[in-house]
Amino acid sequence: MDFCESINKLPNKEENTLHGKSILKTWNMTDEDIAAVANGAAILKEMRENNISPKMFESGIAVSMFCENDIDMKFAFASGADLLGLTIIDIDKKLKNNTINETAAVASYMADAIGVCENKFIEKSSRYIKRISDAVKDKKEKGVIAQKPCVLNLGSDEDSPVQTIADLQYMAEHFGGIENLKGKKIAVTWAYSPDGTRPLAVPQGIVSLMTRFGTNLVLAAPEGVELMPETYERAEKNAAASGGTFTRTESMEEAITDADVVIPMNWAPFSFLEKRTELSAANLGSYIDLLEHELRENNKNFIDWEITEEMMEKTKDGKALLMHDIPVDITDISCIRGEMTAQVYNANVDSLLAEAGFRPYVIAAMIILTRSEDARAAFSAIAERATRRYF
Amino acid sequence: MDFCESINKLPNKEENTLHGKSILKTWNMTDEDIAAVANGAAILKEMRENNISPKMFESGIAVSMFCENDIDMKFAFASGADLLGLTIIDIDKKLKNNTINETAAVASYMADAIGVCENKFIEKSSRYIKRISDAVKDKKEKGVIAQKPCVLNLGSDEDSPVQTIADLQYMAEHFGGIENLKGKKIAVTWAYSPDGTRPLAVPQGIVSLMTRFGTNLVLAAPEGVELMPETYERAEKNAAASGGTFTRTESMEEAITDADVVIPMNWAPFSFLEKRTELSAANLGSYIDLLEHELRENNKNFIDWEITEEMMEKTKDGKALLMHDIPVDITDISCIRGEMTAQVYNANVDSLLAEAGFRPYVIAAMIILTRSEDARAAFSAIAERATRRYF
Amino acid sequence: MDFCESINKLPNKEENTLHGKSILKTWNMTDEDIAAVANGAAILKEMRENNISPKMFESGIAVSMFCENDIDMKFAFASGADLLGLTIIDIDKKLKNNTINETAAVASYMADAIGVCENKFIEKSSRYIKRISDAVKDKKEKGVIAQKPCVLNLGSDEDSPVQTIADLQYMAEHFGGIENLKGKKIAVTWAYSPDGTRPLAVPQGIVSLMTRFGTNLVLAAPEGVELMPETYERAEKNAAASGGTFTRTESMEEAITDADVVIPMNWAPFSFLEKRTELSAANLGSYIDLLEHELRENNKNFIDWEITEEMMEKTKDGKALLMHDIPVDITDISCIRGEMTAQVYNANVDSLLAEAGFRPYVIAAMIILTRSEDARAAFSAIAERATRRYF
Repeated sequence: MDFCESINKLPNKEENTLHGKSILKTWNMTDEDIAAVANGAAILKEMRENNISPKMFESGIAVSMFCENDIDMKFAFASGADLLGLTIIDIDKKLKNNTINETAAVASYMADAIGVCENKFIEKSSRYIKRISDAVKDKKEKGVIAQKPCVLNLGSDEDSPVQTIADLQYMAEHFGGIENLKGKKIAVTWAYSPDGTRPLAVPQGIVSLMTRFGTNLVLAAPEGVELMPETYERAEKNAAASGGTFTRTESMEEAITDADVVIPMNWAPFSFLEKRTELSAANLGSYIDLLEHELRENNKNFIDWEITEEMMEKTKDGKALLMHDIPVDITDISCIRGEMTAQVYNANVDSLLAEAGFRPYVIAAMIILTRSEDARAAFSAIAERATRRYF
Repeated sequence: MDFCESINKLPNKEENTLHGKSILKTWNMTDEDIAAVANGAAILKEMRENNISPKMFESGIAVSMFCENDIDMKFAFASGADLLGLTIIDIDKKLKNNTINETAAVASYMADAIGVCENKFIEKSSRYIKRISDAVKDKKEKGVIAQKPCVLNLGSDEDSPVQTIADLQYMAEHFGGIENLKGKKIAVTWAYSPDGTRPLAVPQGIVSLMTRFGTNLVLAAPEGVELMPETYERAEKNAAASGGTFTRTESMEEAITDADVVIPMNWAPFSFLEKRTELSAANLGSYIDLLEHELRENNKNFIDWEITEEMMEKTKDGKALLMHDIPVDITDISCIRGEMTAQVYNANVDSLLAEAGFRPYVIAAMIILTRSEDARAAFSAIAERATRRYF
Repeated sequence: MDFCESINKLPNKEENTLHGKSILKTWNMTDEDIAAVANGAAILKEMRENNISPKMFESGIAVSMFCENDIDMKFAFASGADLLGLTIIDIDKKLKNNTINETAAVASYMADAIGVCENKFIEKSSRYIKRISDAVKDKKEKGVIAQKPCVLNLGSDEDSPVQTIADLQYMAEHFGGIENLKGKKIAVTWAYSPDGTRPLAVPQGIVSLMTRFGTNLVLAAPEGVELMPETYERAEKNAAASGGTFTRTESMEEAITDADVVIPMNWAPFSFLEKRTELSAANLGSYIDLLEHELRENNKNFIDWEITEEMMEKTKDGKALLMHDIPVDITDISCIRGEMTAQVYNANVDSLLAEAGFRPYVIAAMIILTRSEDARAAFSAIAERATRRYF
């Protein structure tokens, strides 16, 4: 099988710096960590396509904690965990009345993985995920739990490592290797959506991750639709270090022209999200409604930020790779005016869906890499055992 | 074991016309397809009773999509899928904001089976299930997904193949073989229920399926309480082809007299369901309430359509097989006046419950037959392996 | 491994009186039954810590039926069942429209274990669980179901055997063996909570179980905050038989002084729960609100029933074992005034969480003991097979 060679590139006992860790942000991971996850995911995908079961757990629990009903990512987590033999238990809300300590401990007694999605509140959301991670670590050290589950960030206010590493690998496969991303123009562009309140995790995560690989990344957004300021600094530093560039523009067209990859998406301005976090802490729900209303009204000024066929023709040879973390807001299909036209969507739908299909494998790879001291040996054992997934 | 001989009757590689297919309506299935499902289910039941595990998946997802909370069928799907080693993921509502394409793809990336129940809207409901099935097929052809899950109709506006094939097999076992259904009088009769809005899937499915086996099927319903017109045509054609008869009456007593099998159930008139579909599409919720109210008021004219002990005495030798897709509306137990009296229910409860217990096996058989090219070989492998289900 | 010797103490085919039974109340279980569950749980915990999988089911369903969202116990049930290879299906509410007969049968067709939590209504709740248990037994006898799932009480109006046996084993491990509980002073004390409507299952269960082992158990509660009267009689009889004592007091301080174990918790007076059951049966929801309001107002008279550091200093050598079935109402953390201060909670949190972590193993032990004729052989087979839980 093709994957045998890939397995040899995975980190062994001495090299696996992810072992025992939580996965919270890609910028806390080394390039080797990221390559290991992407590579591990690609191997798992190939294994499944060849009917080889990577089940590494006879039994075990994967706890899924979602702030909102992000069904796509929930499904990805469930599918990825199931592939390894874990059973999903949903804690839709924080355990009622429980302290974070209790929640983490109760979730950990029998868990092998905990996936948390909590993206609505600036700072608070990542702090929540971090506290779960810290509590798990503490309970293991105190002997309250016997085995430490890994904690995976499935989407915070800051980053979405599963989505961005899946995208990185998808892009890498498209261009024939991660090294070929060097010099590629990647347009990350804000696009209009009637919703308008989407979190920053994916745009920030994409900008922070893709600039590490020598790309020429252009970020386009209307005036005032900002990400967290540290994202720009991080992207500039990454670009400088990797021999790429990071530029910003207020013109979608400028970003898209000659781009090799186009990644349109909607997000809410950082200032709006900060304000909403503040109002929410003060229990001022009706003012949140007003704030969201005003945002949506203001967004109507940018209704032309839409990916059309004309726009796509301006890209490199008119055939850039179009990427999106579905669901897409599609003009005339899911809304009157959205992120892209139905023509563009229909022309790219199979690629968009294939991109999203990679997430379960990224999650499964993260679980193996954080739980196995010698990840290379774990993958080798799976390959040698070669149990059929179904017959 | 008894099932060894039965396994040899299952379709092999050349014969298995269900492989790669969706199961949407029994009238799109050949007699051999139906016999294979019924036979496969009976084998799986016997295996489980002999503590043999038919687990054919090491890991894998069964996606369950239910329009309403049909807990009985949901449970049957979950149990049947679990028997084969699949993990259930519920998508209670359509993936929010997702197109059907996206829903189908997201559900399919890692799924081995998708069960859909969507029975509320005339035409629209089966179209929805069909579109999921088509999208899955399309995504497989386009290479977006590596393995094609089977799509099972767990109840549409038109048919409920799981329920009806389970009933067929239950009836066949009662009379000592499917061939013994020939000449049997089967009374399918409308019965009063305070609800009154039940879908047509089961009565239409029963009438469409049982007439294929030489039965004398009598359908009784009050004036105006119609099924879809094509159901009658189909039943007549089936009866003519199989050497049986299909007749309609507006008298429960006439239907029941000398019947070998009595199948009472409540359903809403086709005209009502069409009207409700139209009002729903126009978002006229309060008029739907009125429409349902009027239906219930009108149904009170037929409050005597109830299976009583006297009625049961009129059946063949006073001991017809009583069947029902539970839950039953039982007079004095679950409502003031229902489909049957408490006496009749209590006298037949064990048989009614045994009937319902067959559904998980039918679902599991459908999954094996649609997913295994050579179903006979798959069952043989399970029998030879003879892994204990528990110890 | 250490557990080999323990396995030899488990009941074999001749001794296992739990086989085929439901587990409803500890006072229907022999001392040997209780020791077998506690011992079995300790073995399973050690096995998991040594990466040995006690999976005894290749496939199978554990049905979880919860009256309310008791997430901690739900999680424990799911984790314990998963450890043995069972898949959880939740029936959050009783199957809509179904009779108990139908519910039990539908749940049983493919189930290996049914866990029921129904604790809100005096008498009715245990009767409900009993009826499920009886229906399952009846359906097995009538041949409707092939294999009889065990029925476990996960919390009723009367008892909570999972919680109390977990606590017994935790206490026994703390004192170096169940025999060392003899002569220990155990303070079970009511404590203030802003909720105030908690069920009696745990306090009654603790008092009923711990008095069987020669302890000096003191029960403290404000005047009028009674348990069911039969609890006192049972405790007195147990104490007399086991050479311990059972006393009651209206002073928390008296109970706590020189105690070896302190178990604070809040519960509602029996008279309140009886009244609420009556009002609920009469559908008098707004009077229930009033009744609960009055209870909470009255409870404010007992706001000083709080475990403080000063209180803990009065215990034996100032270092009693503090126990609680989390979540705890913690002053200044989860509420303004609660069962214990934040200082006490923080000083004891790891022990409290370790205590709760034992429940999944108790549940798994109950499933093995009720499902395996020869439980000793089942555990031995698991130990000999020694399948790794993960690699």
